This record gives sequence, C-alpha cells and structure tokens, in this order.
Amino acid sequence: MSDREKFREIDSIFHPENVAIIGASPVSDIATLAHMKTKIRDRLYPVNPRYDEILGRKCYPSIIDVPVSIDYAIISVNASLVPQVIADCIRKGVKAAHIYTAGFAETGLPEGMELEKKLKGLAEGKIRLIGPNCFGIYCPESGLAIVPESSEEKGDVGVITQSGSVAESFSYYGRVKNLRFSKVVSYGNAIDLDCPDFLEYLTEDSDTKLIAIYIEGSKDGARLKKALSYAASRKPVIAIKGGLTEHGSRVARSHTAQMTGTPQVWKSLFNQCGVLQVANFDEMVNTVMAMDHTALPEGNRVALISNSGGFSVIQTDLCAGEGLEVPKFSDMTINKLRRLVPLAGTSIGNPLDAWPVYYQVQESGGNLADIIEIIASDENIDTLVVQFDQFRYIRRMLRSAIGDHIKKLIEVMLKGVCQVRKSLGKPVLFSIILDAYSDDDEERKYSLMMKYAFEKEGFPVYPTLDATMKSISYLYRFSQNRRKL
Amino acid sequence: MSDREKFREIDSIFHPENVAIIGASPVSDIATLAHMKTKIRDRLYPVNPRYDEILGRKCYPSIIDVPVSIDYAIISVNASLVPQVIADCIRKGVKAAHIYTAGFAETGLPEGMELEKKLKGLAEGKIRLIGPNCFGIYCPESGLAIVPESSEEKGDVGVITQSGSVAESFSYYGRVKNLRFSKVVSYGNAIDLDCPDFLEYLTEDSDTKLIAIYIEGSKDGARLKKALSYAASRKPVIAIKGGLTEHGSRVARSHTAQMTGTPQVWKSLFNQCGVLQVANFDEMVNTVMAMDHTALPEGNRVALISNSGGFSVIQTDLCAGEGLEVPKFSDMTINKLRRLVPLAGTSIGNPLDAWPVYYQVQESGGNLADIIEIIASDENIDTLVVQFDQFRYIRRMLRSAIGDHIKKLIEVMLKGVCQVRKSLGKPVLFSIILDAYSDDDEERKYSLMMKYAFEKEGFPVYPTLDATMKSISYLYRFSQNRRKL
Repeated sequence: MSDREKFREIDSIFHPENVAIIGASPVSDIATLAHMKTKIRDRLYPVNPRYDEILGRKCYPSIIDVPVSIDYAIISVNASLVPQVIADCIRKGVKAAHIYTAGFAETGLPEGMELEKKLKGLAEGKIRLIGPNCFGIYCPESGLAIVPESSEEKGDVGVITQSGSVAESFSYYGRVKNLRFSKVVSYGNAIDLDCPDFLEYLTEDSDTKLIAIYIEGSKDGARLKKALSYAASRKPVIAIKGGLTEHGSRVARSHTAQMTGTPQVWKSLFNQCGVLQVANFDEMVNTVMAMDHTALPEGNRVALISNSGGFSVIQTDLCAGEGLEVPKFSDMTINKLRRLVPLAGTSIGNPLDAWPVYYQVQESGGNLADIIEIIASDENIDTLVVQFDQFRYIRRMLRSAIGDHIKKLIEVMLKGVCQVRKSLGKPVLFSIILDAYSDDDEERKYSLMMKYAFEKEGFPVYPTLDATMKSISYLYRFSQNRRKL
Repeated sequence: MSDREKFREIDSIFHPENVAIIGASPVSDIATLAHMKTKIRDRLYPVNPRYDEILGRKCYPSIIDVPVSIDYAIISVNASLVPQVIADCIRKGVKAAHIYTAGFAETGLPEGMELEKKLKGLAEGKIRLIGPNCFGIYCPESGLAIVPESSEEKGDVGVITQSGSVAESFSYYGRVKNLRFSKVVSYGNAIDLDCPDFLEYLTEDSDTKLIAIYIEGSKDGARLKKALSYAASRKPVIAIKGGLTEHGSRVARSHTAQMTGTPQVWKSLFNQCGVLQVANFDEMVNTVMAMDHTALPEGNRVALISNSGGFSVIQTDLCAGEGLEVPKFSDMTINKLRRLVPLAGTSIGNPLDAWPVYYQVQESGGNLADIIEIIASDENIDTLVVQFDQFRYIRRMLRSAIGDHIKKLIEVMLKGVCQVRKSLGKPVLFSIILDAYSDDDEERKYSLMMKYAFEKEGFPVYPTLDATMKSISYLYRFSQNRRKL
C-alpha cells in the first residue's frame, strides 16, 4: 500500500459513512450515549437483540440485519462474544471496528491471551481493528465521539493514547481547558492499528497542528522511532511514556499488556526525535494549552506581574526550580515604572509586586496596560506572566462596585497584552488564581469571566502559577531542542 | 525577664483588652473591616481625625483622646507619620503596636532606612512592635483579625510569617482547606519582635499543636536555631525559606530587607533542628492539612484505589518521583479482591484500577467498604489513598439518580476508612478530583459534598493526586527525620 493509500484508509476510519454500535444500550453504554448526541446520530445503527429501539433509533438483533452497508462498527459486548461479532462484521463487509470491550491480554490470564490471539487471527487482512480495551475515536468533524459532553467544534490538537481515560479526560476537559481537537484516538491493546499508524496519519492530516501522545509500550521500536521523528519534523509532538518506574512499568504491563522498556531508552528516543516528553497528564494538558495558544519564547527569562511580596519571593524560587530566570529589569524599565507605580507597599522590580496597579484602570495617564507594555518591552525579558490573585482584596475595597471594576480591569489588561503580542511577539500567559475547592461563588464567577475573556483572545490561562511556570519551562525546552536539531 | 514572663508578655499581645486602630477607615482599611466583624468590635477604638464615627463605633482624632486605656494599637497611617503616632502610643501607655504601614527599609531607599532606624530608637524599651510592613495578628480566641472572611473558630495550627500575603492566604483559605488556627502572625521587617520570639511563644502555647513558618532571613542565626530546635522537639514545625535561589534572594532583600543566607545553610539548619522544609505555599498548606488530620505513616508504601488504567500507570510513576512506593499487594489481598472485584476492564493490583467498585454501595456482600479494608490491611501497605474521579462516569449511567448514589457512596467509603483508622491506625487520604476552572455546577456540588463529609470525619482531602502524594511524601520524610533525631 502506498503512503497515500494508507493515509486514505485511516482517514476513512475517522470519517465513516454508516456506523453500527454492537451491544448498544440506552442506559449503560457510553458509546451509545455519546454518538446519539452528535451529527452521526442519523447514520447510527444500534445492534442489540434485547431492544427494538434505542433513543429513537431502530435497533437490530444482529449487524447482518442492518439494511444499509456499514463501514465502521463499535463493539461493546462481553469479551467472549467478540470473536463471533467480528466474524459477523467481516461477513457484513465492515471495513473497520473499534473494540471497546476489555478482558483480553491485559488481564494477564491465559484465557485472555488466547482470546486476543484468536481475534487477531480472525481479523487479519479482513477488517482493521482499533483496540480491544479502549475508547476509540473522537472526531468532531465526522461526529465520532468518546463522551456525551465533548464539544462538536473542530480544533487543531490531535491526541493518540493507549489509555482510554486519557482520551476521555482530553475529550471531557477540552472545554474547560480551551482546547479543541481534530482527532482523538484511544487504541488500547493495539492488536492491529497501533501508535505509529495513527502518528503517520496525524502527521499528514492538515487539520492537526500539534500532536499529544500517551504511550505505554511499543511492538516495533524502529517503526515508532521513524514515525515520531517524521511527525516531530512536521509539527510539535508532546508525549508521556507511562510506566517509567519499576512499579509504574509493572502497572503498565497489567494495563495494556505491553513491553515497556527502560526510562533511559524512552528519554533518548524522544530527545533524538525532537519529541517533547512531559511527566504526567496535567503537565501534558497545560503544555498543549501553551503550545496551542502562544508563540515560543526566545529564551528562559520571565517577567512576572504579581501582587504579593512573599509570594513574589517563593514564585521566583519556583521559576528557578523550573530552569527559568526572573532577571532584574533594565534601569530604563525601572525608571519608567517608578513614574507609574506607587512606592509604599510595592516592590518595583521583577516580579513587579504591586497591588495598586490592579486599581489603575483609568483610560490614560499610566494604567495597567502601559505597565504591561513597559515590562514586556524590557530587553532582558522573553516571556510575560500576568498573575491575578487580587479578587478578594478588590472586593474588600470596592464591594458592590466589584463587577464594573473587573470589567474595566479585563479591558485594560487585554489592551496591554494584545499590544505586546502584536508589537513584540513575545509569549504572554495568565495565572488567574482559583482554588479548586473554593465555595466562594462570586470569586468563581469573576475569575471565570476573566479566564473566558483572555482565552477568547487566544491567551493561555492557568489557575496556579506553578502550572503556568511549568508550561513556560516546557515551551522553552521545546524551542531549545528544536533549535539544536 | 524569665521565660515565663516573656511568654506572658507575648501572650498578652495576642489577647489585648482594648485595641486602637490608628488610621482607621470604613472603606479602604482591611484592619478596620476585619476587626469590626469579630468579638473585639466592642473594645475597638478607631482613631482618625477625618471621622466622627466608623461603622457604628465612635472615632477619635488622636489615641491620646481615647477615654480608656489601650494595650494594643494597630497603625495604618502614612510611613512619615508613624514615628509621631508611636510617640503618642508611648505617651498613652500602649504596651504593643502592630505597624501595618510599608515604606521603610524594604524600599532600599536611604529615607526608608532612616525612618526605620528612627522608629527603632524611639520604641526601644518603651513599646513592643510588630512590623512594620506586615499584616499583624489573627487570633480567633481574642478576636484579632487579618481579613474579614476568616473563621472565628479556634484551631490548633500556629503560623509565623514574614510575608503578609502568606498570613492573609492562610487566614482566607483556612475554611476551604479545613484548617483552623490558634494564632497567625505576620511580622514583616521585624525591627523588634522577630521570628524566634513568636516561635518560643507558640512552642509553649498549649493551644498550638503544629507550627508553620515562612521566613526570608534572620538577624540572629544562633537564637533562631535554638528556638527552631526546641520548637521541633515539642511539636511538628514546617517551614518555607523564601529566597533560596539567586533571583529569589534578590527579591527577598527588596521585600523585607533581610540578609538571606545560602540554600545549603538553611537546608542543614532545618534538618539539624528537625524542621520539615517545604518548597512553596501550596505544599505548606497541603502538608499542614495532612499533619493536622492524619497519623504519620510507618513507611513509604502507598496503596491507591483508582478508576483508570492509564492514570494508574502515570500515578504510580508520580509516586516513585516523590520517593514513595506502590508495591504489589500480597497474594492473600489479591485473592480476597478477586472474589469481590469484577475482572473485565479492571486491574486487580496496586493501584486498584477498578471503576465498578464505585458502584458497589449495597449494604453487604462485598461493597467498597470491604474493599478499602482488605487493601489497607495488606502488610505491604503503610498509607491508603482513595481517589474519586468517577463523578461524570456515574452521572452518565445514573443520571437523576446520581444524588442518592453519591450519598450511599459517601456512607460506604466512610465506613471503610473509619474502620481502617480505628483498627489499623494507618493514614488515609482522599483525592476528590476537581478542576479549579470547572464550570460543571453539579460536579462541583457533589465533589464538595464528598469533601465536606470526609473532612468532617477528620480526613484530609485534596483536589489532585499530585497534591495528595506530595503531602504523603512530606509526612513520610517528617516521620523518618523524627526517628533519626
């Protein structure tokens, strides 16, 4: 098969005409619930002998009975029934199937291994398989879905993951994280289609701007390396290798039955290929957010606009821990700031520890927009972080006038950062500090108002400074590595 | 002065009879707003020539005019006016004053240095000072307050901090973090009362069970070391040294004008004294939560009840990164679990990756309580982490029945963990996963319902597994170090 033909084969799996869900259920089957909510609904054929109808769609006892041709089947039946269902799919002429069902080699039990082997023999050359033991495909363009809550809006992030939960979490949290996806695929035990297949596909896919990978192991290291190198030469690739430690590797074997390799082997593989390796899921999401929404920094020097002396100190230590610098501002910057920022209770330096600037929202004469521009223009600075942890202070002062003030503050902050992006091209990231468990509805409302406003203009926003700094650190590492290669 | 007299002197500062706020304001002064909300209100004497009355309390033009004797004054006037106000306080016979005002040595400017020197000379031997450039005292027992939102409930955590924001954050987030305080003190530039004074006091204070410290520098290293050693021999002491890196140290100098020392000096100081050093504010809060609410672990072996294979792998790697082990369960444990946990789509090992157990809430015949007990009883396990990241899955299945299910789930989880605490004494921590920016009101409602229920029974609850594991890691480090000393 030529590369072009391979691309077309996988592309048709992501964009099926008619889809059957075998083992469909109106209650307990997430695949059914998810697909009933997307545009694929009218081309969806539920199969389950126990139902005549599911959520308004006629249900068929077997795929053989479906009156149209089916090109993609989602299989969600007991493991022991899967071989028969696959045989039926082949008979029906189905081109590809996603096997949701678990209970194969990952159990570590002889019967699971045996079943997986049988399945493989049955399918080979006759039908393409995704899985078993996985969540399959989310493709907003075609309507294939993983969870009922995901966005139908198409984006430019592609995700390839051996773990279903990673796919589920990306699909679910996409909205919260301001991420939209071209394609997400969870491929589980990978008895047929494997990471390199999807990687080659997303590399050629013009809708995918960057690729995130979660991988536990590989059957063909040389092929994976080739695919990773090629992908990373074309677009940013960010990867987690799950099972890097002794215990983690033990857990990975029982998860997707993969040989896992040593941490060193994987680290050098990713490095050589120009793939950015991150440690965990939160880091991956945060780094993808940064990559998707901002320019790469020229260097590791960060400026921070903050509002607390003590936290400025801790935060500066934290940056150093992430390989970033928080250098002094130039004398020119300091002099300009001295003219605009009150002296008492502030510290005019980097970080700019100056709570009064969050009250400087008047239209002219030295507002927060001007201060943002002065700082970002400093020749010692590569990246600007604007932190907002002032909500409760402002509320104590302004009480019912808080709403108007926050709106003005958003305007003035946006004016500053948009100007920085336009005239200097330097990355700008926001930390709108919010505690996950906060039960302060007003704080939450206004924090989210700020978040949505900055995200709408294309800036990444994080709830902790730690997450912001880690993301900058990864952006910097990525740009360094890219320069080297 | 004897140690007993010193204790009494500081104790009387934390429990004043009559309090004046000099520079009081009904709008812009947080000290006024905060104290008007506590039981000290009726013994509060606002001083400000611009007002006749503030929030229902008569206001006086000068402290000299206040008709009762004042033992504690909070000073919130322009820096240039502070020396005159202190002279007035001495004349009035005020025993101690907290100087809120900034604009002294921390500015790095000659006039600030000069002013601070003048203030010191003026006060010496005549009045005790806290500050300048700080937030002063929060003491629920007496009604001294830092922010208007803090709890009036007394607790057992003592906080000593050079940074006002750290004090403000502890006071504000106490409620969210299920922490209650005996005393919180922010001491800023420390021209008179300094960290060792407060440390000696809290060491003797029977209301304080554990002490958290944020420090940027010290004027008398030998005295600090003695105070730290003695404190740590009596109760757990957790500390952040702010300004550990080159840039952080530069920022610390401009924050509270302290000599800051090298990271190595501080690290070995803390180690020798038996003080647990943490890196940043979030780690400090999370570790204090764990110390306050759970037993110390005997070893570093953690069991994790989870619901996702992929995340189990990443999480196991994460534990190893924190110096923790996620060992295999014993064969006996595995056999017991096999009888209760369905096979397909789960992994019966450590972590227990088993979504179906979150549906096992029936009263008998192998529910989640039994599973919790089986796992915690394993002889290879020192600490149990119960993770809940299942809300959206359960909602997809149960829809409107979600509320009843969550209530049953809380009951059954509590039954298991309370039994573990009672019969085994092993630490149990919860991760109720919740994204800070989540706008899913139902998810938030039920996640907080679980959090409150577990906290009410005295278990620490964290919104991320990362925070949970870091806290266990610190607990373990602390218990190791204590054993060594």
